[in-house]
Amino acid sequence: MLTFVGLGLWDVKDISVKGLEAVREADEVYVEYYTSKLLSSIEEMEEFFGKRVVELERSDLEENSFRLIERAKSKSVVLLVPGDPMVATTHSAIKLEAERKGVKTRIIHGASISTAVCGLTGLHNYRFGKSATVSWHRSQTPVNVIKANRSIDAHTLLFLDLHPEPMTIGHAVENLIAEDAQMKDLYAVGIARAGSGEEVVKCDRLENLKKIDFGKPLHVMVVLAKTLHFMEFECLREFADAPAELERLVA
Amino acid sequence: MLTFVGLGLWDVKDISVKGLEAVREADEVYVEYYTSKLLSSIEEMEEFFGKRVVELERSDLEENSFRLIERAKSKSVVLLVPGDPMVATTHSAIKLEAERKGVKTRIIHGASISTAVCGLTGLHNYRFGKSATVSWHRSQTPVNVIKANRSIDAHTLLFLDLHPEPMTIGHAVENLIAEDAQMKDLYAVGIARAGSGEEVVKCDRLENLKKIDFGKPLHVMVVLAKTLHFMEFECLREFADAPAELERLVA
Repeated sequence: MLTFVGLGLWDVKDISVKGLEAVREADEVYVEYYTSKLLSSIEEMEEFFGKRVVELERSDLEENSFRLIERAKSKSVVLLVPGDPMVATTHSAIKLEAERKGVKTRIIHGASISTAVCGLTGLHNYRFGKSATVSWHRSQTPVNVIKANRSIDAHTLLFLDLHPEPMTIGHAVENLIAEDAQMKDLYAVGIARAGSGEEVVKCDRLENLKKIDFGKPLHVMVVLAKTLHFMEFECLREFADAPAELERLVA
Repeated sequence: MLTFVGLGLWDVKDISVKGLEAVREADEVYVEYYTSKLLSSIEEMEEFFGKRVVELERSDLEENSFRLIERAKSKSVVLLVPGDPMVATTHSAIKLEAERKGVKTRIIHGASISTAVCGLTGLHNYRFGKSATVSWHRSQTPVNVIKANRSIDAHTLLFLDLHPEPMTIGHAVENLIAEDAQMKDLYAVGIARAGSGEEVVKCDRLENLKKIDFGKPLHVMVVLAKTLHFMEFECLREFADAPAELERLVA
């Protein structure tokens, strides 16, 4: 049995009680920090779980994933994943391979940044369109996704690249504007350290967001839709110091 | 202090360890089942938490939310919410009102159906567009959202109405086809009891999904984008018994 356990957003205590039980009952416990990051170290996890935790490399999740699956044929194996498992496409590939080889799989879900941004910004979940990643090697994709979402009046959640190091909001904004100068006038919300209880959340035009110091990673951003629901505007004013001029977007 | 704690998807053990600690330290604990449902009863929660849990009505969350906020001025109040708090717009309204009245708020996130559907179906999270609710009183909105999402090649997550009773996938499909007969040919995935470990997940054309018995609630659906990534197709074949003809959608 291969059980994917979501670790949630920030530290080791963001795991669910059900996930914690699965870890404590497992024969072997692995963790991967590749698709996301978590504040807690392996040592903190081992202490909290009372169990050895082995970190996997990218290659263990990709070309060598058969090794993990082989072990799960006869043992109870837990793979710990920051956030909610399967939001990263790597995990669904492993689940697929496991099931095809007759290994039972189970998912114990965790909190994900995809929905956490709603609570932190007040933006309505049902108004989010497709998401994209702003990566260190430049690409037109995020700009295209923002434009497609705006064509149907949807918000865009942007993940920022983690490798070789976590990108800041300032860098991401520069990337977007370099790809398309018109981006600078769009309104967006920068969110740092979601789930930590010490989040920084700021809304402004992209060219202004660039100047704000959001502090340590992880950072994500939401580029706003063409219009806002009035409650979204009110929340952005209160939670994210949005400028009063943003009221123009209220539909 | 008003702390919103996400209960996650299915039963009382889907709460995070951090959420559980907040409940145990709270002066007063409330729960609301209005914006979603959870399998566990109040009694099971009280036993698990070792604490009295008071259920709130819809009116307590809306026109009378000032009462909850008033209590949080001097006490440590926890509001338990199925899923991830703030995915329902009701909660961001309460958070806004609290902060304006000088009451500190905090969110402890939980797993949400919005991301759980990715793990259950293998559909890629970044390809989801806006979501909508199919409600008992008929509306054109879900059909419009499906069409808008398909115009940018995005999947659509559909929540099914919970009041006065939880809607089934069969009912939702009938509603959609009654609004727009062309809907019947679209491919969709029906998902029952996400997070239970006993999910039913089936992919087919809407007109065929209608005939499948998904069993007890809660049900949700995903209407597919115009195209599929080949890994999405492979996962739907394996996890959701999708028909082989679906391969035509692979881009």
